[in-house]
Amino acid sequence: MAKNIKSRAEDYAQWYLDVIKAAQLADYAPVRGCMVIRPEGFALWEAIQRDLDRRFKDTGHVNAYFPLLIPLNFLAKEAQHVEGFAMECAVVTHHRLENDGKSGLAPVGKLEEPFVIRPTSETVIGHMYAQWIQSYRDLPVLINQWCNVMRWELRTRLFLRTTEFLWQEGHTAHETAQEAQEETLRMLDVYAAFAEEFLALPVVKGPKTESEKFPGAITTYGIEAMMQDGKALQAGTSHNLGQNFAKAFDIKFLGRDQKQQHVWTTSWGVSTRLIGALIMAHSDDDGLVLPPRVAPVVMAIVPIFKSDADRAKVAAFIDVAIRTLVGEEEFAAAAKRQQSEVVSYFFDRATEQKIVVDWRDNRPGDKQFHWEQRGVPFRMEVGPRDVDAGSVVIKRRFDRAKESVETSKLTPGHLRTELADVQRLMFQKAIEHRQANTHRVDSYDALRATLAEKGGFVRCYFHPDRQAEAKIKEETKATVRVMPFDAQGQTGKCMYTGKDGAPEVIFAVAY
Amino acid sequence: MAKNIKSRAEDYAQWYLDVIKAAQLADYAPVRGCMVIRPEGFALWEAIQRDLDRRFKDTGHVNAYFPLLIPLNFLAKEAQHVEGFAMECAVVTHHRLENDGKSGLAPVGKLEEPFVIRPTSETVIGHMYAQWIQSYRDLPVLINQWCNVMRWELRTRLFLRTTEFLWQEGHTAHETAQEAQEETLRMLDVYAAFAEEFLALPVVKGPKTESEKFPGAITTYGIEAMMQDGKALQAGTSHNLGQNFAKAFDIKFLGRDQKQQHVWTTSWGVSTRLIGALIMAHSDDDGLVLPPRVAPVVMAIVPIFKSDADRAKVAAFIDVAIRTLVGEEEFAAAAKRQQSEVVSYFFDRATEQKIVVDWRDNRPGDKQFHWEQRGVPFRMEVGPRDVDAGSVVIKRRFDRAKESVETSKLTPGHLRTELADVQRLMFQKAIEHRQANTHRVDSYDALRATLAEKGGFVRCYFHPDRQAEAKIKEETKATVRVMPFDAQGQTGKCMYTGKDGAPEVIFAVAY
Repeated sequence: MAKNIKSRAEDYAQWYLDVIKAAQLADYAPVRGCMVIRPEGFALWEAIQRDLDRRFKDTGHVNAYFPLLIPLNFLAKEAQHVEGFAMECAVVTHHRLENDGKSGLAPVGKLEEPFVIRPTSETVIGHMYAQWIQSYRDLPVLINQWCNVMRWELRTRLFLRTTEFLWQEGHTAHETAQEAQEETLRMLDVYAAFAEEFLALPVVKGPKTESEKFPGAITTYGIEAMMQDGKALQAGTSHNLGQNFAKAFDIKFLGRDQKQQHVWTTSWGVSTRLIGALIMAHSDDDGLVLPPRVAPVVMAIVPIFKSDADRAKVAAFIDVAIRTLVGEEEFAAAAKRQQSEVVSYFFDRATEQKIVVDWRDNRPGDKQFHWEQRGVPFRMEVGPRDVDAGSVVIKRRFDRAKESVETSKLTPGHLRTELADVQRLMFQKAIEHRQANTHRVDSYDALRATLAEKGGFVRCYFHPDRQAEAKIKEETKATVRVMPFDAQGQTGKCMYTGKDGAPEVIFAVAY
Repeated sequence: MAKNIKSRAEDYAQWYLDVIKAAQLADYAPVRGCMVIRPEGFALWEAIQRDLDRRFKDTGHVNAYFPLLIPLNFLAKEAQHVEGFAMECAVVTHHRLENDGKSGLAPVGKLEEPFVIRPTSETVIGHMYAQWIQSYRDLPVLINQWCNVMRWELRTRLFLRTTEFLWQEGHTAHETAQEAQEETLRMLDVYAAFAEEFLALPVVKGPKTESEKFPGAITTYGIEAMMQDGKALQAGTSHNLGQNFAKAFDIKFLGRDQKQQHVWTTSWGVSTRLIGALIMAHSDDDGLVLPPRVAPVVMAIVPIFKSDADRAKVAAFIDVAIRTLVGEEEFAAAAKRQQSEVVSYFFDRATEQKIVVDWRDNRPGDKQFHWEQRGVPFRMEVGPRDVDAGSVVIKRRFDRAKESVETSKLTPGHLRTELADVQRLMFQKAIEHRQANTHRVDSYDALRATLAEKGGFVRCYFHPDRQAEAKIKEETKATVRVMPFDAQGQTGKCMYTGKDGAPEVIFAVAY
């Protein structure tokens, strides 16, 4: 079989794209910078949505849908906001097409006022909240939206930065500044727990500096993860918007004190770039490696046979195993489904995780390779000799461990335990990788040297300052990713200015 | 309390909008013809998505995501298709905004080739399928997409016809014409079963006439439902696209016969207009009436008390009832959630259906009215006297039936049975309404008279013909909604031309 994936050591950027291609997660679309999320990749997004949506609802949120198009004058209402997004907006100017007399079509029906495709929805949601909120009794408003957004990015990379991407954006309105702050931190915690428990992705939580905050926010908090090359990836942000948007859109309510006042709002979001994080944090030179909780297929069974008799023998064995693993009801339901030669059974209907049996004509080695590249946590080969021996070999994708399992022990409970073990081990490995690549410095020289020689996260005391940060970025490519909560408010001498009382920050080169 | 809903008899169109407004399902957006789907309305879409998505996966389909923007030249490739959609496309022509020197923003960064916002995705999906499909081994491709689409409609009405709407579009590719036809009908059946079992909406299945088919299809099949005013509403369509799009986008494969050939494709979709159907089929002059399986809230509990002592007594009773109905685990989980004065408990976590307790300060009558207008299947008032008597009164929204239930019988099983009963009764009522408003005619005069005097579905034998249909539409506003499968291929004398061998059709005025 052809080696279709460059190694990480050879070319990390190309490795990333090769992993995506080999696992058929996504393709570039025929629209500049946009992607097509293929079924294997979209199943990851569905798993993410399912888990996160439950966490949002468990914290009292509900979903809604706001329009794709935003009137230009809405964007203009919040000064920082328009500055942050005006450079990268797709603009709708016409509402009809006409034959252009040659062989093509031309836009006609010019709109009186153009619209932008939402780069984010604070403005249009603010406009609606102003109509919905009258009294303190209408608060809090705790709404989330799952949707597509568009930012006309210059440099794009599948999942990490695309012109169109999918995301969720939470938008809440509160009676007091304190409640808004509590909500901002609550959702940061939700993101962090989700990243660690579900994606097996350790994250550092904390506020961003002024120069890294969301256009229009008072404070932006982020969760920052380390990729295998030591670079940082911002995996989610939660913004305290104060009264900025409330004032821009005149979202007022009659308070308990009988006075009209502006609400306090928050917004928070994660996007399909999480799939990029998932790939870069866990995959290896053989392709995708998925944490079990995210994996659309938890086990791939590859039958091995030469003769028809062997095939029948192996098939009978696999049928029994599948009935044990997924239950009689699902076994019968699968038979009624349209199927390819790769037969799918739901192992867990709630999470839609499947077990597949690969009956294609290809060579067993090719089929092993196929499922390996897709990151399936467990693969099981079944040949006639395994049937005779009454045991099968199960290969673990994450660390290539092999386990011989007696047929009688191949139960749903056994598989669940194995999956939970891998989830834990993958998180542990990511933690260890981050520890090994986190450094501490106390001077700018040391920061530069560490970033240049070792990369990773570099912790130091630093007084955030827009100009200093710009200069450091220019010289090192690194930015302040986060002022970590885990520093517990400790301060020290600023590594850049030498002034005391500087908070701890993490510098890193970021995706 | 103010009567905020016009009666159906008084003004059916206004009644529809009033019901939506009173239940806070949707608002018009600040973008022409677009809507904001509010949380109460979006929960209906989530319920629809959850049920339909499961049906899609149970028939072997997977989800994916294709880009929002479509290059103009793609649309032009299928002649009928471009003709069908060119008149109503939102066109993106620029990718940046600049201060216009006055106080506004102006589009800059003109694109070399403009894009349209997808009105449907056959073209861009066809383009991708051409790259993904090489051999018969790659078939069938069974992909669905949940997304937003945009058609610049002239006349819009919330849910039923909006410029932007949410939908799902299935797009499949097959090896043979027969498989594509089987898929087309399979999905029609999925839609029909979903409409009847989940929405309690009886539908008639069958092909559309040539003049009503999808631009680019060989045959379009639809499910047609009757609203309370006797008008028809197309609730879903399934298209056999033959090789039309395969030829336009050159989707070829190497067949089992070692020859290159074009695939056979289908597409099928339902949209947020189903929410409009749901409203118009079941609601009454007092507001929304929801079939229990769709209802986000299955029961609203309204406490009645005057003194603090009474409040405590009622609260203690309700706590016990809730613990029985939702279980201890959910009771504890709810306490940790952010809540308003309306406290929510999940009755069923899988369907996200809730029981709410309305602790607001409002008068009990106002609260009853509130939940009545939202279509909640069951309401329960609990006052101190109910607690003493050991029984509560449960009001059924659908037919206003009241039942006195002994406290000990207030179990999840009891509630489930009651919900299933209402689901069945609502479907039955809708069937009876359709029967009472379906007529049979054998002449054009009778068709005209029946449509003018009675409305409803009018069945007759008719040779479909583009010109005749246009003329009939002009004279009666009615169109052929469907050539019903339930006629079982029987033919008769065409009511319009008198020619024999005409199939049975249903004429109706449609939404």
